Amino acid sequence: MRHAVLGGGKRIRPALAMASAIAVGGRSHDALPVAGALEMVHTYSLIHDDLPCMDDDDLRRGQPTVHVRFGEAIAVLAGDALHTLAFDTIAGSDAPPEMRLECVKRLAVAAGPDGMVGGQVLDLEAETRTPDARGLEAIHRGKTGALISASVALGALAGGGTSWQADTLGGFGQELGLVFQIVDDLLDEEQTSARLGKSAGKDRAAGKATYPAIHGLEAARAEASRHAAMARSLLEAAGAGPGPPVNSTGVHLLRLLTDRILHRTA
Amino acid sequence: MRHAVLGGGKRIRPALAMASAIAVGGRSHDALPVAGALEMVHTYSLIHDDLPCMDDDDLRRGQPTVHVRFGEAIAVLAGDALHTLAFDTIAGSDAPPEMRLECVKRLAVAAGPDGMVGGQVLDLEAETRTPDARGLEAIHRGKTGALISASVALGALAGGGTSWQADTLGGFGQELGLVFQIVDDLLDEEQTSARLGKSAGKDRAAGKATYPAIHGLEAARAEASRHAAMARSLLEAAGAGPGPPVNSTGVHLLRLLTDRILHRTA
Repeated sequence: MRHAVLGGGKRIRPALAMASAIAVGGRSHDALPVAGALEMVHTYSLIHDDLPCMDDDDLRRGQPTVHVRFGEAIAVLAGDALHTLAFDTIAGSDAPPEMRLECVKRLAVAAGPDGMVGGQVLDLEAETRTPDARGLEAIHRGKTGALISASVALGALAGGGTSWQADTLGGFGQELGLVFQIVDDLLDEEQTSARLGKSAGKDRAAGKATYPAIHGLEAARAEASRHAAMARSLLEAAGAGPGPPVNSTGVHLLRLLTDRILHRTA
Repeated sequence: MRHAVLGGGKRIRPALAMASAIAVGGRSHDALPVAGALEMVHTYSLIHDDLPCMDDDDLRRGQPTVHVRFGEAIAVLAGDALHTLAFDTIAGSDAPPEMRLECVKRLAVAAGPDGMVGGQVLDLEAETRTPDARGLEAIHRGKTGALISASVALGALAGGGTSWQADTLGGFGQELGLVFQIVDDLLDEEQTSARLGKSAGKDRAAGKATYPAIHGLEAARAEASRHAAMARSLLEAAGAGPGPPVNSTGVHLLRLLTDRILHRTA
């Protein structure tokens, strides 16, 4: 569990949760339990995704994957344990009970069959039946968008934001999730394994449905920019709603994270 | 997910939760969300446990296991999805928020690294380093006892019982969990696969640490009876505490379930 969850990574989801807490006028510290839980759910999904029966990856975050290092059985169980621990971490925090419960609910929906896991199943099916552009977007909204959206929404709730703010910022997160995944697909085509800290070029080898595979590299880049623009618009909208005024530092941080996700090279 | 969770089984954990709700003066109906969640967690653990990299089982509840029927990748994801859905089911029920939160917390602790998954890791380690009697009990308390204990405790909370009642009935559940697992070990030695609906004799073949392997058949049977007697005592104690008086029908049901678990033949 430690090897996987403390072994580096970009910490995008915790960063989004903490920036989002600030954006609604709270403190980044308030978002620590949800930030930890989000990273644990993300990491459990990576551990299981790297298993031989799934993507069969040996390298993750520049380290041997959990099953390479500790064996497959321990990898399955380490993922399962992190999955449970995520809910434990939120439910056992000292935030107000109603807020903890709302975070548990939203995290479960985002991670479950209608969210992340559902997207992974669609992704598996896409290996034998190539999806169209709409199908591909549905895959990405599930397997990546749902949890990135939940990161922003849970951060907003943890920072004391209203449900309206969590929903609107969650919409921003949905678009941001698509940006993240399209860029991920592009990097898998364009970068080396050493730079990414994980095996590059695997999507093409596996015949995976990706944005570059379906749209071509140029159009995929344009799609990433288009979704980033939509994300920025939704971020502005979150400041114009019925909730309390947003904190401009927090919004600025979310905008910086958007730029960083769009222009990242690893 | 449906194949696994709706494909039969004894439904011991839901039955315990519903009987426990009645025992504290509630209605069995109140325990349905936690009963469903407990069965989903149990089933997810069976799906993952049956994987080739774990126990490599082909037969479960008289049906092909999920990975045999749908492939390994779908089996990993179906287990993951049921795991998340369990928390979703409790958090999204219409019970009082504080109670839902308490159930999420207790379920997470019971299923996580200090409970079920921790027990499974100890069980794996026992394949290469035979545990003594105490070590074996620790394995069983984790991998089986924790969730059976949580079944009784969550049922009590869902039925409107106090924390004291949930804890005391949970103690009953811990002993009952040991009874369940010892009998499971005995049945694996003594029964046929057809009768059990799962592969028999696998523990011995795998060199697993079991009660019969460590204590012998007779002593294992005596251990099961001893823990059943302790369970019955704790059940009596739950009626004598500071909580509201217990419902005798519910306690009777829990006693019947104890007898059934001790004397089951499949």
